[in-house]
Order: sequence, then C-alpha cells, then structure tokens
Amino acid sequence: MDKPLISRRLVDSDGSLAEAASGAPKVGILGTGDFARSLATRLVRSGFSVVVGSRNPKRTAGLFPSAAQVVFQAEAVESSEVIFVAVFREHYSSLCGLSGQLAGKILVDVSNPTEQEHLQLRESNAEYLAALFPTCTVVKAFNVISAWTLQAGPRDGNRQVPICSDQPEAKRVVSELAHAMGFTPVDVGSLAAAWEVEARPLHLFPSWKVPVLLALGLFVFFYAYNLTRDVLQPYVREGKSKFYKLPLSVVNTSLPCVAYVLLSLVYLPGVLAAALQLWRGTKYSRFPDWLDHWLQHRKQIGLLSFFCAALHALYSMCLPLRISYRYDLVNLALKQVLTNKSHLWVEENVWRMEIYLSLGVLALGTLSLLAVTSLPSIANSLNWREFSFVQELWVF
Amino acid sequence: MDKPLISRRLVDSDGSLAEAASGAPKVGILGTGDFARSLATRLVRSGFSVVVGSRNPKRTAGLFPSAAQVVFQAEAVESSEVIFVAVFREHYSSLCGLSGQLAGKILVDVSNPTEQEHLQLRESNAEYLAALFPTCTVVKAFNVISAWTLQAGPRDGNRQVPICSDQPEAKRVVSELAHAMGFTPVDVGSLAAAWEVEARPLHLFPSWKVPVLLALGLFVFFYAYNLTRDVLQPYVREGKSKFYKLPLSVVNTSLPCVAYVLLSLVYLPGVLAAALQLWRGTKYSRFPDWLDHWLQHRKQIGLLSFFCAALHALYSMCLPLRISYRYDLVNLALKQVLTNKSHLWVEENVWRMEIYLSLGVLALGTLSLLAVTSLPSIANSLNWREFSFVQELWVF
Amino acid sequence: MDKPLISRRLVDSDGSLAEAASGAPKVGILGTGDFARSLATRLVRSGFSVVVGSRNPKRTAGLFPSAAQVVFQAEAVESSEVIFVAVFREHYSSLCGLSGQLAGKILVDVSNPTEQEHLQLRESNAEYLAALFPTCTVVKAFNVISAWTLQAGPRDGNRQVPICSDQPEAKRVVSELAHAMGFTPVDVGSLAAAWEVEARPLHLFPSWKVPVLLALGLFVFFYAYNLTRDVLQPYVREGKSKFYKLPLSVVNTSLPCVAYVLLSLVYLPGVLAAALQLWRGTKYSRFPDWLDHWLQHRKQIGLLSFFCAALHALYSMCLPLRISYRYDLVNLALKQVLTNKSHLWVEENVWRMEIYLSLGVLALGTLSLLAVTSLPSIANSLNWREFSFVQELWVF
Repeated sequence: MDKPLISRRLVDSDGSLAEAASGAPKVGILGTGDFARSLATRLVRSGFSVVVGSRNPKRTAGLFPSAAQVVFQAEAVESSEVIFVAVFREHYSSLCGLSGQLAGKILVDVSNPTEQEHLQLRESNAEYLAALFPTCTVVKAFNVISAWTLQAGPRDGNRQVPICSDQPEAKRVVSELAHAMGFTPVDVGSLAAAWEVEARPLHLFPSWKVPVLLALGLFVFFYAYNLTRDVLQPYVREGKSKFYKLPLSVVNTSLPCVAYVLLSLVYLPGVLAAALQLWRGTKYSRFPDWLDHWLQHRKQIGLLSFFCAALHALYSMCLPLRISYRYDLVNLALKQVLTNKSHLWVEENVWRMEIYLSLGVLALGTLSLLAVTSLPSIANSLNWREFSFVQELWVF
Repeated sequence: MDKPLISRRLVDSDGSLAEAASGAPKVGILGTGDFARSLATRLVRSGFSVVVGSRNPKRTAGLFPSAAQVVFQAEAVESSEVIFVAVFREHYSSLCGLSGQLAGKILVDVSNPTEQEHLQLRESNAEYLAALFPTCTVVKAFNVISAWTLQAGPRDGNRQVPICSDQPEAKRVVSELAHAMGFTPVDVGSLAAAWEVEARPLHLFPSWKVPVLLALGLFVFFYAYNLTRDVLQPYVREGKSKFYKLPLSVVNTSLPCVAYVLLSLVYLPGVLAAALQLWRGTKYSRFPDWLDHWLQHRKQIGLLSFFCAALHALYSMCLPLRISYRYDLVNLALKQVLTNKSHLWVEENVWRMEIYLSLGVLALGTLSLLAVTSLPSIANSLNWREFSFVQELWVF
Repeated sequence: MDKPLISRRLVDSDGSLAEAASGAPKVGILGTGDFARSLATRLVRSGFSVVVGSRNPKRTAGLFPSAAQVVFQAEAVESSEVIFVAVFREHYSSLCGLSGQLAGKILVDVSNPTEQEHLQLRESNAEYLAALFPTCTVVKAFNVISAWTLQAGPRDGNRQVPICSDQPEAKRVVSELAHAMGFTPVDVGSLAAAWEVEARPLHLFPSWKVPVLLALGLFVFFYAYNLTRDVLQPYVREGKSKFYKLPLSVVNTSLPCVAYVLLSLVYLPGVLAAALQLWRGTKYSRFPDWLDHWLQHRKQIGLLSFFCAALHALYSMCLPLRISYRYDLVNLALKQVLTNKSHLWVEENVWRMEIYLSLGVLALGTLSLLAVTSLPSIANSLNWREFSFVQELWVF
C-alpha cells in the first residue's frame, strides 16, 4: 500500500517514451500549513521530489519531511511544472508577484471554503484563482481529502478525488499524480464544477437531518402515548406496578407505529404531486419547494421506516427471552391448575397471532429486498425500468 | 444538486482557454416529443442555451420551457455544434434534407428501440443514424435515462449514462455535457457497443425470471405436501382441526425444503460441466446452451436459497411468540401435573434440537457472508483468487 | 452478453471515421499456453480476427479455436498492431529476435509473477518487457483475469481490468479492446503502477488473516472457560450432566465475550497512537510498524466484533426454541404447583433482563448501521466528514 510508486514521467506532451532527466518528477507546493505539510509527506512517500515554496524557508524547513526541499517561493515555482496552491483564498492575491514565473504551469487548487464563504461568494476558490492567473491552467483537486488521510495514506473510506479543469491535458497530469499517491481520481468535468466540488466536504448527511428528526419526534410521541396507556393508567386506576415494561415492551409497541407513519409519508408526496399535476394540467412546471424537498427525501424516510420495522422484529423476538415472560407462563399454568383444570385454547386468539406474525415476516422480507436495492452499488447495476419496478413494490 | 452548472466551453479543439462568445454554450434538439421536452427542461436548468428544431415552431413552442428557443429545424441545426436527435428511428430518414447543415457536427442518438425492433433489425439505431449521415459524428448516449429523470434531475437510482462513439473527442464533449447535467458518463467504447447499450433499458431482471419462478414452483409443491401431511391428514383421520397452522407453521416447514433444493441446484451444474469436460476430453469446447444458462444463473439461485433460509430463521424465531405455543406449554404443564407429576426430560429430544439449532445458526451466518460478497461493490473489491475462495466455501 | 461486439476500428490515429480494410480488427498473440488459448477463444467470440504466433504452428494449431490463425511468430507480429505477450517472464528475452518487426507496436503484458518473483525482483514484468523492447509501447492489462474467466466470458465477480501504460493512446486502444471483450477497463496510471497491479492477484484477503485468527483464538479460550464453568464443574462437583449445553448454550455465552474483547481492540490502538504523539510532541513522525498494522486492521476487527454480536443475537433468539427450554418451563410450573402454589415473581430479575435485552437490541441496531457504512459503495458515497462522524459513533 505504502511502497514508493515512482511515476517516472508526469508530463508527456509529445507522447514519446523518453524518461525525465532527474529521475523522480518534481512537484511544487506553495504554503506551509498543516495541509501543505501532510501533502509533502505523502508526495515524498509516493516517490516524488518535492519543492516547498515558503516566504521564510529557514524557519519552516523543520516542519517538513527532510526529503522535501524548502526554498523561497519564486525558486520553488521555477523548478516544477505542477504546483499545489495550499494557501487560504484570502492570500491568493499575495501570490500575484509570482505570476511571471507561474505562466503556463499547472496550479492545483486544494482549498476548501468555509460554509459561510461558500454561500456568500458564489464563486469557487478555483475559479477565483483562475481569474487571478489567466496564463496558468487551474485544476481543482484533493480538497475532499483531509490532512490526516494525506499523511497516513488512503486506507478506509472514500479514496475518490474529484478533479475538474478546463484543460483535459492538465486534468490527465493531475489524475496520474493522484493515482501515484494511491487515490482514485474521478473526472467531474470543467472548472465550472469546482463550486459543487468545494461544497462536498461541507455536507454532513444533508438529506438525513430532517427525516431523522421526524422519526425521533414520532417515536417520542408514540412512546409517551403507550407509556400512558400501558403503564401509567393501570398504575393510577388499579394500582398495578408495570414499570418493568418501560425499557422493552413500551419501546416495542411504539416502533411499528413510527414505521407505519413513516411509510405513509413515503407515498403521500407522490399522491400530492400527481394531484397537483392533474390540477395544473401540465407536468412541465416545477413543484413548490416544500413538495420538491419532500419528494427528494422519500428514500431516506423509507429506509428509516425499514429500520424501525427491523428493530420491532428484533424486540419482538426478544420477548420470550424475558424472565417476566417465563413468570407469566408459569403463573398462567398455576392458575389453570388451581382453578378450572381444563384444556386451555382460544381459537380466535390463536388465529389472530398466526396471521399477524406470518404477514409481519413477509413484510419485513420484502422491505429488506427494497433496502438492498437502495445500496448504491446495487442501484447502479439496475436500469431505470428495473429500479421503477422495485420502487413500485413499496406501494403494495 | 439543481444549481446551474454552466459548463462554459464545450468544444475545446485547440486546448486553449478561450471562452465561447455567447456565454452559455448552445445545444440543439431535433424533435418535439416527451423526451425532447424533458431534455430541453434539463439542459436549460443546467445552464445551457437550447435551440429546438421543429417542423412547426409556432404550434410546438408552447410545449417547451420559455428559455428554450423553438425554431425551424434547419435554423436549429445551423447554430449549434452538438445536436440531440430525439425522433423515432423510422423518422431518421426525414432528416436527410438537413445533411448539408449537419456536416461535421456531433449527433447524439438518444433513441430506444422496442424489444421487437431490437431483435429483428440487429443493427443499432445509432449505427443506422451514422450510416445515414456519414459526415457527422454519432454519439450514443442518454437512452437509459427516462424522460421523468431528465425532467426532475438525477436523484435516486442509477445516474450512470453509458456513452459510445467512434470519435474520442466527440465522446469527451458529450461526457462533459452529461457531467454538467448531473449524470455520470461511462465510456463503453466504440459505436459498435451501441447495440448492447440500446438493449439495456429493455431488461427487467433478465437473470432473475427463471430462478424466481423455480423457487415459487418449489414452494407451492412443498407447501401442498406439508399441508396434506400436517393439516389435512390429521383432520381426515382423527378429526383434529389444525387449520391454524396454515399461515405460519406450514410455511415454515416448507421454506427449508425449498432452500435445500435450490442449494443443490447451485452445485449440480458445476458437477455436470466437469463430467462433460472429462467425457469430451477438452475444456475448450462450449457447453450446451441449457447447461450454459444454468451455470450463469447459479448466483441468483444461491441468493434465493439464502433468502428462503433467512425467512425460515425469521419464522422459526416467531414460533414462541405465538399464542398457540403458549397454550401448548400451559396444557403440557397441566397434563404433567394431573397425570404423572414427575420431572419432564427426554435427553434425546433435547440433544437433537440443540445440535439442529446450533448448526442452523452457523449455516445462516456463513450464507450471509456469501450473500454479502455478492454485492457488486464487495465483489469489485475482491480479486479473482479471493472470489473463488469465497465461492468454494459454498461447497462445504 | 456473449454476442460478437465487433469493434471495427481499434487504432484511430487520425480521428477519421474510415473503416479498417479487413472488417474485423486483427489482434496478435505470442504464446501457446493455457492463458493464450483462453485469450484466443474470447477474442474470437468478441469478433476479432486472431493471429497466434507459435514456434511450431503445425503442432499447436489444434489447441486453438479453428477461427484463429496459427502462424510463425514473425508472421503473427507483422500483421497486427496490438500483440498480447502471453509467455513467461523468463522467456521474454527469447522474443528479442522479433524486435525489428515489433517496433512501434503495442505489446500487452498479461503475465503474473509468482509471490517469490514479485518480492525478489522488485521490478514488474511489464517494466522489464518495456526495457527489452524500447521501441514498443508496453501496456499492462488482463493479468487479474483468470484463464477460466477469459474462456467463459465475464459473468460473476469482478469485471474490472486495471490497465496502465506510459502512453495514453495505447491505453485507450487496449481499453476499447477490454470493453469489446466484456470487461470494464480501469485506468490506474503510468507503467510504474504495474508492480502494484501485478501484486493484486497474489492477495488472499491479506487484511483479514490476523483478525480472523485472533477472533478464533479468543473464541477457543472463552469456550474452554465457559465449558469448565457451566458444564464440567457442575458435573464433577454435583454429578449433574449438563453436556447438552455444549452445542448452543456454551457457544452463546462465549460469543459476547469475544465481541467485547474485539471491540476494545478497535479502540485501543487509537488511544495508544494519541498517547505516542503526545509523548513525541509531533504528529509528523511515523508510528512503529506494529502499531501501524494494528491501526490498519481496525475495520476488520470491528466487523468481526459485529459478526460475533450478530451471531450472539441469533443464538439468543433460538434459546426459547429449544426443547430443553420447554421442559425447564414445565418443570418450573410443576414445582410451583407441588410446593408453594403461590404467584411467582422476582422484580429484580425481571428488570435486569428487560434492560439487558433493550440495550442489546439498540447496540446491535447501531452496530449494523456502522457495518453498512463499511460497504465500499456506501463508503464511497460519504465524504470525509461524514465518514469520521460515523466512525466516531463507535466510541459511544
């Protein structure tokens, strides 16, 4: 995993097989922060020769791996064709003095805006850099990678690095670089995509926030209701203490209610949307925003409904494991012996439970098939007709 | 997700960074059907300037989003470099009058044949279009996307758009376009692959049809057998009404039988194939068609076997939840009290059940590991040696 | 799946749409071994015209499909632009006589080193080939594919073929070829990546070996302990034979112990690493090897812990299905009737079990969410911030 992968030639403009003179290819880094240092560490380990440009090389040299050269910015820029710009957006303009030396080179923008910057500025950092240095080719890359992942090498989680640029050749060069560093470059198009690429590390499960809060709220509501009905009321009215039901029984009766309500919320927006289209008489106008958001969150709501149903199944299967279940059974047998001594059987109760359990298992089995098709890799292997077919199963 | 991603330059033949004169790049659409309208909607929302070519612009303009220009076909074709051909195959020849204006441009074939056409013609729509317009570059793309997905924007399911063409540069241009529209272009090679690409939306789980029917047939057979043995026979012979067993018990005894038969059908073709190879004395001749199909469906049969086994486990765990189980226990205790009053214990029965359950859990655990390796993303992360290793586990 | 996909033009240097003169494109193969024959079979079925170069065409012709031409090596090399080198590394030098005819052509290195060669030589086969034939373009590809998969066509498992070369155009040509053969080419960069690509087929779950052995060792230890405590001790001391507990009860009490120890081993290395960094005063020095390996195996240890916990849940739910459980219950009722005849209830025992079960189900539910995010396709859809968030959940 970590062995030096010396990508001997980076820029291969004439397509020939000539080797670069200096052995390992040179890569420049502008910046001396945490990210710059981790980047230098990773590049050195991947077999590159790294030149770091600093405004004060003497002071900062100690922070970098010893194999990396730390020199003045102008010098670093001169000796390498690919230069990582690892400085904050507000300091981009401070690099303008180097624009002469930078002309014709590839600048890799690795920066990440804060959430506020991203929303206020509406222009990506990469496009701003491209505007400042019109003679350079700007490539947006590596911004989704943390300093920690860079330093330790890609191991778990996502190895994909979205790369975008207006210049295919520059994109290819940076892709090879990413390959050599152990990441998987993903071409996401022209530099106009940089705004969206810079938004990626800001997300924290954006599509899950509302559905999860909704499910929690529903659970609290139903738990309170069942608590009152099954525990508090018997205690107040008849003085029976059934508080032992709090951790398991009450949770278990609340879960299917949550699951049912969530499942109905999966279908409701589709019905509303169809009604709206019929009323408007066209399918080519946009839905109101609230309905659009609702439609987009159906998958998440459906998966939470499945999660509640699965938990309910688990809890139900734990019921006979309880000591209280065992005591109840023994006491029932005791009562039967002491009072009427006859065979115990109520046909109606038996049937009700058998049918309920059988349908429950079937429903859970079907829901788990649906949940499996929500996995990205399965969804990608289905065509549109198959995906619709599976999704329509939810209706029945 | 839906913000305008203005891909400023589409065709960048000289690799320079010059911007297209008109700001947003122009894309042409020939056709006024449902797909053409959805395509126009999506392109407009993705920041493109859309020109629709119609034979009757006045009548059809109202059907398109207001930002799209609707003009005569010849005019639409003249002003854009990339032209979507959103008309049916039988009308391709009606465009021949435009071949002068179309010369040198990129035609994107988005059409889908019907199942019949696909099998009868044996020539893909895209290749037919390329034959009609030898001076154009034809790219096959977007046929796997439904009009609905185009209109609403890619959200769930598969975002992948297979793209093929004989001209790498044209493929790159259409790929960038797909990126800008929010899809993930997948290069599937030269235009010769169009036949296969056009077949994709026609499939509806082709590899699952036979295995599912087989499993259903086996289930009906075993259900009928167990129904007769466990319910009808006691009723006819001894007059005992055990019809409450229909929904759960009989299903539960039928499922493992189905699972076992399916599992044996996973291994049988491998054995037959090996025998055939030994008998023929070579491994380089093809198997007969029926054996070949059988060998190809092993994975599906195995997964259905796993599904039946998992359902059996779920049903079994529901057994003690039944009211009838509870009644049976109380009645057993009652009988024990009223008759012999001695300690109840049959060592043999105890052992049989303990061993059966223990092996069952282990088998289910192993099968679920195998099922996990069938997920595409897991299978892709295994090399051939690892995949074979896991598959061989099935044998033991 | 298996229909001939005739990729009509392979090399399209001038970008024109002219068709190759001979209909099907010609592909050469040097070598007559098992892999060469399977390769020929697949290429013929994919619509290519195959020329096999042999040192003794007469003797070897019978081994190849009849549609493949078997000729002398020099002749085979002359007539095709793309040549598969399907001979062992030690015979590469025997091809040096052909270097005149091979000049300017694309050589595809499909070889796999043995584990020993791979570690001793430290130079990939592909790079060795490139050094022997400096006038050719060497592409590394297809080495991860087995002869069997080639012959039968790609069906299950991994269809991905990593391709690397120093020449983008040659990489494109071989990628199209792989497409036409039904595989999914994956660009992994320059020829320097060949060493890593050649290592891939050698792995057999390298990251799972130690964690699995660890889990097995722990299980044996805890099983022995519980066996002594629950079965042997009562037998020796009181003469009670509880050997029926061996297959299920003892396994079930051992599993959670293994799960807990494994879970603690997931967190321990993180704590150690943090302590080491604090003690050293820097985060930019490398950890000792043993700690590094441990940190890398955390995911596998965590998944095994989850697997043990899930098995424990399954076993626990099987407990009430046992005959012995049923007997114990009846005997308890019997004892209750015969001795004190009073209502049976021990509040403390009831509460303990309810809380234990409720927490157990919640823990298992959370762990399964974590296990789902370990699936490659889910992990790829998470950004770094989301992945860390989920991983940190393990701590609580």
